[in-house]
Amino acid sequence: MNPPAVILSHPQLGENIGAAARAMANFGLSDLRLVAPRSGWPNAKAAAMAAGAASVVDNARVFATVAEAVGELNLVFATTARERGIAREILTPAEAAKRLRVASTRDERTGILFGNERAGLDNDEISLCDAVITVPTAEFASLNLGQAVLVTSYEWFRAGDATPPARLEHGPLQRKPTREEMVQLFEHLERELLASGFLYPPDKVDGMARAIRATLHRAGLTYQEVQTLRGMIVALAKGKHRVRKG
Amino acid sequence: MNPPAVILSHPQLGENIGAAARAMANFGLSDLRLVAPRSGWPNAKAAAMAAGAASVVDNARVFATVAEAVGELNLVFATTARERGIAREILTPAEAAKRLRVASTRDERTGILFGNERAGLDNDEISLCDAVITVPTAEFASLNLGQAVLVTSYEWFRAGDATPPARLEHGPLQRKPTREEMVQLFEHLERELLASGFLYPPDKVDGMARAIRATLHRAGLTYQEVQTLRGMIVALAKGKHRVRKG
Repeated sequence: MNPPAVILSHPQLGENIGAAARAMANFGLSDLRLVAPRSGWPNAKAAAMAAGAASVVDNARVFATVAEAVGELNLVFATTARERGIAREILTPAEAAKRLRVASTRDERTGILFGNERAGLDNDEISLCDAVITVPTAEFASLNLGQAVLVTSYEWFRAGDATPPARLEHGPLQRKPTREEMVQLFEHLERELLASGFLYPPDKVDGMARAIRATLHRAGLTYQEVQTLRGMIVALAKGKHRVRKG
Repeated sequence: MNPPAVILSHPQLGENIGAAARAMANFGLSDLRLVAPRSGWPNAKAAAMAAGAASVVDNARVFATVAEAVGELNLVFATTARERGIAREILTPAEAAKRLRVASTRDERTGILFGNERAGLDNDEISLCDAVITVPTAEFASLNLGQAVLVTSYEWFRAGDATPPARLEHGPLQRKPTREEMVQLFEHLERELLASGFLYPPDKVDGMARAIRATLHRAGLTYQEVQTLRGMIVALAKGKHRVRKG
């Protein structure tokens, strides 16, 4: 799966090139292409801002024109916030990411083109691209260059990411308990709550116990936590027994 | 739909607070809370970096502790890249965004807590939160504070955004043509291609015409583009006729 190239047209500030490189590296992109960077190249500020992503900056290639920078690519999207007069397909970053991945599975080379900080892309640059990506925003719409690269790179990674939406950190004792272990916890707790007089009167006991079980289920306990809870019950009940004996 | 508060614990650099504010404003978040910002508050660098999002910075509130900053919230997620020993639910930004929106529809107050640039959140701070958000990244994982706020704010906006994945920019003449207008274009083009000798030999004509129709369908032409294409056919065919006459 070949990630897309990121092409920055006439970028003005080294800091923004560095921020773009750092955003790319976090999401698995590495092919950075610069078209006529205003402050020349290499650029110390870009390297500083890239932090650990220095290799992306070091391997960046410089081109004189956008046409040269995208020359061997098969699919290129332009990012722009602006509405233009020409009928052009406008994609969300998510849809663009899907299409970039489909192209990549066909061994096509892909890229995403970004305009500069001040003026964005001009119409000639956009006319080199298959379609336009616009990041949906609230009314206040003012993503800077690094932020635009971050959102599109993130979406590219996200489209291929299999991280489960919700998971538990876990160590060796943090496996999920079996039903039997949960039932042992419930019965232990209910036994002590009965003995202590909390579960009362008798005709309410079953309903109260079921409500407590629901609370404990909802916590999604680990095996370790079940053991901890049982220890807590023992400790609390021990006091109770002592008081009674006294 | 109440957007989540963004709580920055012990932020070090004004620039990062400003970048966080700008990220928030782009995606409809406005409630910024700072816990003991290192360089004091207000901070000129934060205001400069926020650019047009100055109101988010101006309205930021400062608290002494995380517990105070999240005091009246009902649902709080902590963002962290680190694995901890404690069994805790870890959410993707997308899953967290869904849960924040569900809570918001129940009129619950929500927030997202971010650690500082150097050390992230400590275990006591995380223990105030319902669950943890971790941004899935490539092997190189080094999102800065502003980038982490951007990704989570973006996901919050995205989860409620109805922008169609792909759409066409369009003006008054850029409506989709009717089937009849498409058929008129096809027949016009095929008539002229037959007359010019391009559609030949006769037993291939139907297949060739169908292939050309498929190309034109795939372009997803607007009404205006259909008219332009017909003008191009007239212009090109006019030359042909002249040559033949001569």
